[in-house]
Amino acid sequence: MNILIINGPNLNLLGKRKPEVYGNESFESYFDRMKVDGVALSYFQSNIEGEIIDAIQREDIDGIVLNAGAYTHTSIGIRDAIEAVDTPVVEVHISNVCNRESFRHTSYITPVCVGSILGLGLKGYDLAIEYLKS
Amino acid sequence: MNILIINGPNLNLLGKRKPEVYGNESFESYFDRMKVDGVALSYFQSNIEGEIIDAIQREDIDGIVLNAGAYTHTSIGIRDAIEAVDTPVVEVHISNVCNRESFRHTSYITPVCVGSILGLGLKGYDLAIEYLKS
Amino acid sequence: MNILIINGPNLNLLGKRKPEVYGNESFESYFDRMKVDGVALSYFQSNIEGEIIDAIQREDIDGIVLNAGAYTHTSIGIRDAIEAVDTPVVEVHISNVCNRESFRHTSYITPVCVGSILGLGLKGYDLAIEYLKS
Amino acid sequence: MNILIINGPNLNLLGKRKPEVYGNESFESYFDRMKVDGVALSYFQSNIEGEIIDAIQREDIDGIVLNAGAYTHTSIGIRDAIEAVDTPVVEVHISNVCNRESFRHTSYITPVCVGSILGLGLKGYDLAIEYLKS
Amino acid sequence: MNILIINGPNLNLLGKRKPEVYGNESFESYFDRMKVDGVALSYFQSNIEGEIIDAIQREDIDGIVLNAGAYTHTSIGIRDAIEAVDTPVVEVHISNVCNRESFRHTSYITPVCVGSILGLGLKGYDLAIEYLKS
Amino acid sequence: MNILIINGPNLNLLGKRKPEVYGNESFESYFDRMKVDGVALSYFQSNIEGEIIDAIQREDIDGIVLNAGAYTHTSIGIRDAIEAVDTPVVEVHISNVCNRESFRHTSYITPVCVGSILGLGLKGYDLAIEYLKS
Amino acid sequence: MNILIINGPNLNLLGKRKPEVYGNESFESYFDRMKVDGVALSYFQSNIEGEIIDAIQREDIDGIVLNAGAYTHTSIGIRDAIEAVDTPVVEVHISNVCNRESFRHTSYITPVCVGSILGLGLKGYDLAIEYLKS
Amino acid sequence: MNILIINGPNLNLLGKRKPEVYGNESFESYFDRMKVDGVALSYFQSNIEGEIIDAIQREDIDGIVLNAGAYTHTSIGIRDAIEAVDTPVVEVHISNVCNRESFRHTSYITPVCVGSILGLGLKGYDLAIEYLKS
Amino acid sequence: MNILIINGPNLNLLGKRKPEVYGNESFESYFDRMKVDGVALSYFQSNIEGEIIDAIQREDIDGIVLNAGAYTHTSIGIRDAIEAVDTPVVEVHISNVCNRESFRHTSYITPVCVGSILGLGLKGYDLAIEYLKS
Amino acid sequence: MNILIINGPNLNLLGKRKPEVYGNESFESYFDRMKVDGVALSYFQSNIEGEIIDAIQREDIDGIVLNAGAYTHTSIGIRDAIEAVDTPVVEVHISNVCNRESFRHTSYITPVCVGSILGLGLKGYDLAIEYLKS
Amino acid sequence: MNILIINGPNLNLLGKRKPEVYGNESFESYFDRMKVDGVALSYFQSNIEGEIIDAIQREDIDGIVLNAGAYTHTSIGIRDAIEAVDTPVVEVHISNVCNRESFRHTSYITPVCVGSILGLGLKGYDLAIEYLKS
Amino acid sequence: MNILIINGPNLNLLGKRKPEVYGNESFESYFDRMKVDGVALSYFQSNIEGEIIDAIQREDIDGIVLNAGAYTHTSIGIRDAIEAVDTPVVEVHISNVCNRESFRHTSYITPVCVGSILGLGLKGYDLAIEYLKS
Repeated sequence: MNILIINGPNLNLLGKRKPEVYGNESFESYFDRMKVDGVALSYFQSNIEGEIIDAIQREDIDGIVLNAGAYTHTSIGIRDAIEAVDTPVVEVHISNVCNRESFRHTSYITPVCVGSILGLGLKGYDLAIEYLKS
Repeated sequence: MNILIINGPNLNLLGKRKPEVYGNESFESYFDRMKVDGVALSYFQSNIEGEIIDAIQREDIDGIVLNAGAYTHTSIGIRDAIEAVDTPVVEVHISNVCNRESFRHTSYITPVCVGSILGLGLKGYDLAIEYLKS
Repeated sequence: MNILIINGPNLNLLGKRKPEVYGNESFESYFDRMKVDGVALSYFQSNIEGEIIDAIQREDIDGIVLNAGAYTHTSIGIRDAIEAVDTPVVEVHISNVCNRESFRHTSYITPVCVGSILGLGLKGYDLAIEYLKS
Repeated sequence: MNILIINGPNLNLLGKRKPEVYGNESFESYFDRMKVDGVALSYFQSNIEGEIIDAIQREDIDGIVLNAGAYTHTSIGIRDAIEAVDTPVVEVHISNVCNRESFRHTSYITPVCVGSILGLGLKGYDLAIEYLKS
Repeated sequence: MNILIINGPNLNLLGKRKPEVYGNESFESYFDRMKVDGVALSYFQSNIEGEIIDAIQREDIDGIVLNAGAYTHTSIGIRDAIEAVDTPVVEVHISNVCNRESFRHTSYITPVCVGSILGLGLKGYDLAIEYLKS
Repeated sequence: MNILIINGPNLNLLGKRKPEVYGNESFESYFDRMKVDGVALSYFQSNIEGEIIDAIQREDIDGIVLNAGAYTHTSIGIRDAIEAVDTPVVEVHISNVCNRESFRHTSYITPVCVGSILGLGLKGYDLAIEYLKS
Repeated sequence: MNILIINGPNLNLLGKRKPEVYGNESFESYFDRMKVDGVALSYFQSNIEGEIIDAIQREDIDGIVLNAGAYTHTSIGIRDAIEAVDTPVVEVHISNVCNRESFRHTSYITPVCVGSILGLGLKGYDLAIEYLKS
Repeated sequence: MNILIINGPNLNLLGKRKPEVYGNESFESYFDRMKVDGVALSYFQSNIEGEIIDAIQREDIDGIVLNAGAYTHTSIGIRDAIEAVDTPVVEVHISNVCNRESFRHTSYITPVCVGSILGLGLKGYDLAIEYLKS
Repeated sequence: MNILIINGPNLNLLGKRKPEVYGNESFESYFDRMKVDGVALSYFQSNIEGEIIDAIQREDIDGIVLNAGAYTHTSIGIRDAIEAVDTPVVEVHISNVCNRESFRHTSYITPVCVGSILGLGLKGYDLAIEYLKS
Repeated sequence: MNILIINGPNLNLLGKRKPEVYGNESFESYFDRMKVDGVALSYFQSNIEGEIIDAIQREDIDGIVLNAGAYTHTSIGIRDAIEAVDTPVVEVHISNVCNRESFRHTSYITPVCVGSILGLGLKGYDLAIEYLKS
Repeated sequence: MNILIINGPNLNLLGKRKPEVYGNESFESYFDRMKVDGVALSYFQSNIEGEIIDAIQREDIDGIVLNAGAYTHTSIGIRDAIEAVDTPVVEVHISNVCNRESFRHTSYITPVCVGSILGLGLKGYDLAIEYLKS
Repeated sequence: MNILIINGPNLNLLGKRKPEVYGNESFESYFDRMKVDGVALSYFQSNIEGEIIDAIQREDIDGIVLNAGAYTHTSIGIRDAIEAVDTPVVEVHISNVCNRESFRHTSYITPVCVGSILGLGLKGYDLAIEYLKS
């Protein structure tokens, strides 16, 4: 089973940016420690909306864990891509975006995902994979 | 470790109501099958907002998994209770409420919970407990 | 045929409260005079939202006439209960709520009822029963 | 007692338009079967807002049953006519307009009618006449 | 100089409707008493929006005094007609519409008229004609 | 194949009104020059909303090209008529209404038409007919 | 009969500011030419909201013609003053404020005045005095 | 003179919850120290909206001091109860709710109370009783 | 202890304006009767927003009781002054502004005051002083 | 004459995505069949907003047919590019976006295009080219 | 070249108010140190809106640097004054008002100024003068 | 000191696009003439949102002058990048965006920048650098 983790804009700064909110570990470092029996994990990060759309359209994937970052709140293009493909997508946010600025309370993406996990830190990625595997 | 699962209004109908959305199993039946090492699980359901507030205020609990149902969108009282106690609360919704009616898109409760899991079915309760245990 | 009339908050004050708007007769008194051939009528009133949800979930009822009072405008829980059961529900309001305060112009409940009768006084209950019987 | 039934735009299509929602019978056919002791019924239909205003202004009428159709949501002129005359007006809608598009949820007309019946099919006309007669 | 007074829906009821607000005199009666040197006055009333548009398009008129009644707040068609013709139009309202319902506070018509007089009773028509003549 | 072109309010002024926006030719003149093989064209214009509804309800028509003018933004009645009939309707606007006043940016009619052409001048009518024919 | 004309902020610039909109004559110059039999006219201008409130509170006045300028749209204090005194107030605006910026479309003052005249230039002041005298 | 103090949801946590905002004293402890000559004080607290409605409907009370807590912002039922009874109600809030979240800025209850005291701590209860006594 | 009472626009009319709402006594008269042990009271009234800002900035004051009248709803300048000084400010309104026009329901000033008392008549000033003294 | 067709995000999935809405043919396949005398057609597709801006800025083009897909509703950058260049742009949408989600009802792009064609399927591209050629 | 610096309400408190935001230096002190070759600087501060309008209307000034403080967000009168005079006005705000309360995000004044500088501290005044001089 | 100037979408057209608003000089040409003692200037322009995010994340920069163009109003991703890095960012807009379309009045970026300069033409870049240097 092939699962692709896609991280959106500024998540390449994880571990550097606001460590009191997001912790000190980079996602790459965390990813290296992730291991799930029977699942082949791959990882993609981009700051460019269109490249995230490209990644969602990839055809060799059985499930996607998507943290679209800021594009969650502005990208209808990513929404359309998720709707267009058959690959199930589970959304993850590291922090609880619902207690931040109001423009982070609306999401174009959540309604077209299978489900969403937010506020549970990097652990959220593991839970999403666990769900996709089940 | 004591974890309390609280289900809000109409979740006593689970297994009877809209089986095509929520499945055929009652929550009581599902609860009986839940088992987590090192966790003592208890369960409470009520259709009355104030009784849910009472349950959140209980002092012998180390963690709460809360599906406030319809009160998610209307109850500031439940929000205040979560804010007032020290017990960590993880929110769960069985269905993806973000692709239902617009009045289900606002939540008084999410901003004061640790995090939220939605759309992942009854599996969401298991993942929430797994998080609280970790 | 079993029809249940459910009255919501403050309707226990009928006959005392604002008689120039609602008249001088208590609902209990009016109920005693209601008689419909072939229909067994019962009556329930509560000021508690969750108890109204409980009443709607009752399984021995063929039809409900519901005046949810103030909860009409605030209760998604009652809406969910109506949607969840198979019992047909006809909504009644004694006064014309549409020419009162603007927060009384929105209803969570009307869209999930079979229909609605408003502004026709206590006569509205009779017409609702007549409809359910037909 | 003279009661006038006024139907607004497109209700001349009743029986042809969306039969799964509105049934197969034309209103003219239904009207021919309506009979109420002691009530002289007449019927008027127009697609033109101003002609409905003219009809409401008629002086030989003791009560009006009005289904203003689409003008319910857009016509302040019909509202003003109802307010200007002494004839009591009961509003009827065949379908439950509250679970259709959001622009059908606001009504200029309901606040100035005696009351309103919606969602009870053609039966709603009978109930409205029964109310006016009582 | 030819000046046309156009009255919109329900203004044919003037003198009958809400005399405490609008007085007891019909407009026809008031019109018969209006006399302005050098001005040929004519009068048109209709409850039909499209007929008011027709009247505004008349080519033999040097000025229009328009009380569009309820259509003031709903008719873009009348607005377009005023914009399309070269005839100057002065808007009149008998009552002060700004202290009535909020839906009477917006006007499609005022922005395309030369000016507007409101709340000065039937005297407003005289002042409008005096302006057009000057 | 019978195609009916329906023009709404003030379009009878075409060629006179704002020639810098709409050009100098009347629609009647343009219509006389329209010729499409295999299509019988007819034309109807009215300033009255209800008469446009009547025209849409005509039963001998295979396709309608509709420019509802100002009623585009205010008429639920015309929308209902289009929805009620089986005749396919293509909407046309001569100017680009999206760069005019904001109240012209909402349309009750577009969602129930097959499609819409705007801003392409009188040429838009030809393209609409070409589409209906194909 | 004592009538006071009150002009609000920036109206001291009349004749200098935007002459293409407001003309070349200062209000002082125009005022000197105003003469009405049986009426003693006085004039007050201030850029300070509180001084306009003071002027409205003057007790020796039988009628006020008020052009509150920019304070029309922002001053509840002036509104309260008009409501508090018995002196009838007629509002005047030189230009048609309804076709300028949207924040000029709301008025705190119009609802508490007897009536309002807008867009008729300096002539509006004369018509307002004519009304007060009648 | 009988005065009833009613406290709404979560106020049973006073002294435990956010002591930096609400202080360390429980309301029961504070209540025991309250003494007003000529006034018999009683106290009721509930987390259940409907029970607060019941308490307001009590007939043996000359005045109510009400802190409805979170229900202030969501309960039309409590509002209706206050309107329905003759007992004067003074509203109290311990903290200044106007500088907290925006959903705490609207109140269904204030408009039907005699008056309101907010932000003055527990002292607000004393001042409310002093007012009711005077 | 020096306490300054500041009254805003139109409060100089107290006793004259709407006596059925505000009573017959002028504030000056009421002020002369106010006496609090250990408190030196002074009084300032102005219709000018900027003069109220000046008064709040006075440095010899230990507490302010402020009824900003209409400026409550429009003045950010007064808000800024309150925030800028260290003097505690208690807000008073004589009537219950929450059951008047909707534009009186928002306040720029309440969030930066210690607290607020409304609807308790002139007694509200006494209670505010009592609070400041305690 | 050089005409460039630009397709935005996810339109590379045409023929695969939601065939019941968009049909089974890829755009590349359709493009190969397009032939217009005297017109040199070229085609560009990208999922990246900035690359679409680059394409609009191309200087060797006489006309553009643009289907910006999801960027229609979110991209001010594409709007600015269209405004900045002299090349006429005609907008095309394959489906009737006005009867889909409400966030698809606003367009940044339509106001700066010559015109727009929506809901007429792939035929819309042909009609747009026909217009540009004329 | 004569340049006038105008400071609005509460800016006379600079150096006393919130020093952590605005610093410890009074504007008068800062002004004494400002020196620009070829520019004669003068300074005016007032808490009264109307006096700021008066200052803007002064005729002997070649450029204005305006910090309208709280009136930025509420004064249409100051806006009108800026529009009415020919003197170029550059707006300055010491702090970044865009990350403060939402009512500080709208400005009546910015659209009629040449430009605006915000968040750059007292340095902003220097940069504004440098611009006006260039 | 290294300062990076970042220009967003369509600013590569400067000098070609709307010269009456933006002038005739390209930014590259202007940049070549910019010289500030002790500052090493570099320049980056892109039409792609993600590339602007990349540029902001560069680690060898002491200050950024950012004109995000259209992305100012739509990009939360750029906002997040500015918040994530320690580099101070000063925002510049060449024109006064506040007197253009309303969608240009909101900015995601201004609140997280040190400050903002708008409407002062290309001179704004120089002033921003002068500020960063100071």
